[in-house]
Amino acid sequence: MKKKPVRNAFYAQSGGVSAVINASACGVIETAMRSRQIGRVYAGRDGIVGALTEDLIDVGRESPATIRGLRHTPAGAFGSARFKLKGIEQNRAEYERLIEVFRAHNIGYFFYNGGNDSMDTALKVSQIGAALGFPITCVGVPKTVDNDLPHTDCCPGFGSVAKYIAVSTREAALDVASMARTSTKVFVLEVMGRHAGWIAASAGLAGRSAEEPPHIILFPEVPFEQQRFLERVRAAVERHGYCVIVVSEGAAYADGKFLAEGGTRDAFGHTQLGGVGPVVANMVREAHGYKYHWAVADYLQRSARHIAARVDVEQAYAVGKAAVALALKGVNAVMPTIVRRSDRPYRWSIGHVPLGEVANKEKKLPREYIREDGFGITAACRRYLEPLVGGEAYPPYRNGLPDYVRIKGVAVRRKLKDEFKV
Amino acid sequence: MKKKPVRNAFYAQSGGVSAVINASACGVIETAMRSRQIGRVYAGRDGIVGALTEDLIDVGRESPATIRGLRHTPAGAFGSARFKLKGIEQNRAEYERLIEVFRAHNIGYFFYNGGNDSMDTALKVSQIGAALGFPITCVGVPKTVDNDLPHTDCCPGFGSVAKYIAVSTREAALDVASMARTSTKVFVLEVMGRHAGWIAASAGLAGRSAEEPPHIILFPEVPFEQQRFLERVRAAVERHGYCVIVVSEGAAYADGKFLAEGGTRDAFGHTQLGGVGPVVANMVREAHGYKYHWAVADYLQRSARHIAARVDVEQAYAVGKAAVALALKGVNAVMPTIVRRSDRPYRWSIGHVPLGEVANKEKKLPREYIREDGFGITAACRRYLEPLVGGEAYPPYRNGLPDYVRIKGVAVRRKLKDEFKV
Repeated sequence: MKKKPVRNAFYAQSGGVSAVINASACGVIETAMRSRQIGRVYAGRDGIVGALTEDLIDVGRESPATIRGLRHTPAGAFGSARFKLKGIEQNRAEYERLIEVFRAHNIGYFFYNGGNDSMDTALKVSQIGAALGFPITCVGVPKTVDNDLPHTDCCPGFGSVAKYIAVSTREAALDVASMARTSTKVFVLEVMGRHAGWIAASAGLAGRSAEEPPHIILFPEVPFEQQRFLERVRAAVERHGYCVIVVSEGAAYADGKFLAEGGTRDAFGHTQLGGVGPVVANMVREAHGYKYHWAVADYLQRSARHIAARVDVEQAYAVGKAAVALALKGVNAVMPTIVRRSDRPYRWSIGHVPLGEVANKEKKLPREYIREDGFGITAACRRYLEPLVGGEAYPPYRNGLPDYVRIKGVAVRRKLKDEFKV
Repeated sequence: MKKKPVRNAFYAQSGGVSAVINASACGVIETAMRSRQIGRVYAGRDGIVGALTEDLIDVGRESPATIRGLRHTPAGAFGSARFKLKGIEQNRAEYERLIEVFRAHNIGYFFYNGGNDSMDTALKVSQIGAALGFPITCVGVPKTVDNDLPHTDCCPGFGSVAKYIAVSTREAALDVASMARTSTKVFVLEVMGRHAGWIAASAGLAGRSAEEPPHIILFPEVPFEQQRFLERVRAAVERHGYCVIVVSEGAAYADGKFLAEGGTRDAFGHTQLGGVGPVVANMVREAHGYKYHWAVADYLQRSARHIAARVDVEQAYAVGKAAVALALKGVNAVMPTIVRRSDRPYRWSIGHVPLGEVANKEKKLPREYIREDGFGITAACRRYLEPLVGGEAYPPYRNGLPDYVRIKGVAVRRKLKDEFKV
């Protein structure tokens, strides 16, 4: 049997980062470094931009402790990029450049850690590599806090945001409940999820029943009706003394217009200033005059490694590890998936799907996960979500703060002469 | 020696709640229940409002497990109130009513858990009780996330907010750093502290040097100069590729006008909608055009028991316990304080001061804690703050979420005929 030639591996992070994307990096790197089939392990500085500009990080120059520490470090340690490669027809030069860089550095394995867009890119790289006579094994590593990838039980990154939002909602609701008699009666928390309501839904875990807060969740999947909403707010305040509202940044009217576009202007007449949280809070004030507060978690929610779900960290590592294992077996143009085996106790294993079935597809919150009235989650949704926030995985602390690692990021010596502008 | 008569104790929570005010409640209640000198232990439902309306909670009806669980439960388990008793001259009726209720329930000990205002109230209750021939031992229990009480090293509640803000800033900064090349370059986090910059200062712990984020902190104590600020933002983006800004809700111009009043209007022309976070972010966008994000932590920061500082929980319990011990020794009209014995390792003990020296006084961030340029903290400030965020004190979890306790809240049978309207 002919021994396969040793080739190098390239790993890149893509799109919005998460609390556990580095755990996937850790899974990829530790597994790749143990393989005799893989020579050196490189990472793109700032994702695919690093590949295009031949700015590769030599992962072998990092200590094993740093690599291990990625497992408990949030955000993108190698840098990520919001950079979508256009279609091959529109921009063949970019794809050819990638292959040129990969060829120069003998890169035979490409691991791309991202969401739908990134799976599309990985697929195209695999196709063009073959067409240009430089075959590359391309495996996607799923990552997205939005949980909108199809064919996988969930996406690494989501469980930890879900836990953060559920915990924060439970805590803030206790705060509001204890003050409502003489102070704030309405509290609004804005959460991420522009197109899919998975993160908003996770706030529903904060209450153990429909009687407990949050009293209202506004999903992107449910067209916003102002009167029904305002009536529901009043009913909650009259019944419970206060009302906790969780609103997805993607909440929109029936005509598709985002609530966040709903009229907030600065002194110069510009829109875009406000988030949807203050817009909703203000609506309540105008209609009912209740004292309110609002919070916008923004990046805090997706970088909150301090409250990551243990199962999420484990899955993030597992998909990274599986990606390398698949590549070493010669399986090309696939993405590892998480397969749910049972709800309680939660059991899962790793499967995989062709990249083409994932690329550019979006999994929205199904109707049966949204309560009939549109303002909360169903028992089925709770059954789905609850295991995903399970377990704690605290980072180590030093002087009272999480001891997150930072890479040295030593650059690989360039081999190509020409600069590439991105 | 004549034995002191057994009298009952009354405990009430006051003002904005915190992640550890219930730990103080736990300290008061457990200590009071062990004393033979104290009969029953009552709590005001919704703070002092419960006393005025004779709506007392019989703490003896709660299980020891619930009382113990208060130590890990955020917000005000008995309900708190934003309700400041006016001066005795303006509203003698309220004070007389308090004494009437206390007399009806044989309450000889009053423990009031709050900030400056509350210390003032406790002092007045002690004075009027004596004047009306019903002496009550009144002891304040310090609590405020703002850390603005004088004569104590710090205030229980502050250390946990400080830890939350420092951790969140470190995490969000990693997120921004990893994306800055192709995405968000400026991130703004709005934090609490309307008059004092202690919470804003705590964000400074996120970086280990002035080179690390946050690059800019805006304190209420430093008059805001827009041009200097904008130049600093640009310098940070040019030097580091991104800029992390932490702004106190109390940041203001030299004339005292809050930045948050700075022109944000909704479609109807109302101000008050926005927080200072979006105002600052928008300023940066208009001047430099950088892509930005902003977050407003609001109640999330002060209810975040999941990331409480262990030392804060211990101090909160200790001041509650000490309040009862002082009262039992007959020390009246005082507040237990935290006395710093050394910085590293942090050593502290409990002292006490007369309520009159605390009441209605505010401790601002001293100038020597603010860097000369006004945009960061000094080494002295770091030395002060660092011990206060020390240690972790995780709550127990159940199904992935903190298992916070809730009281039964059984009401004490009323003894007075007349209703009192507050």
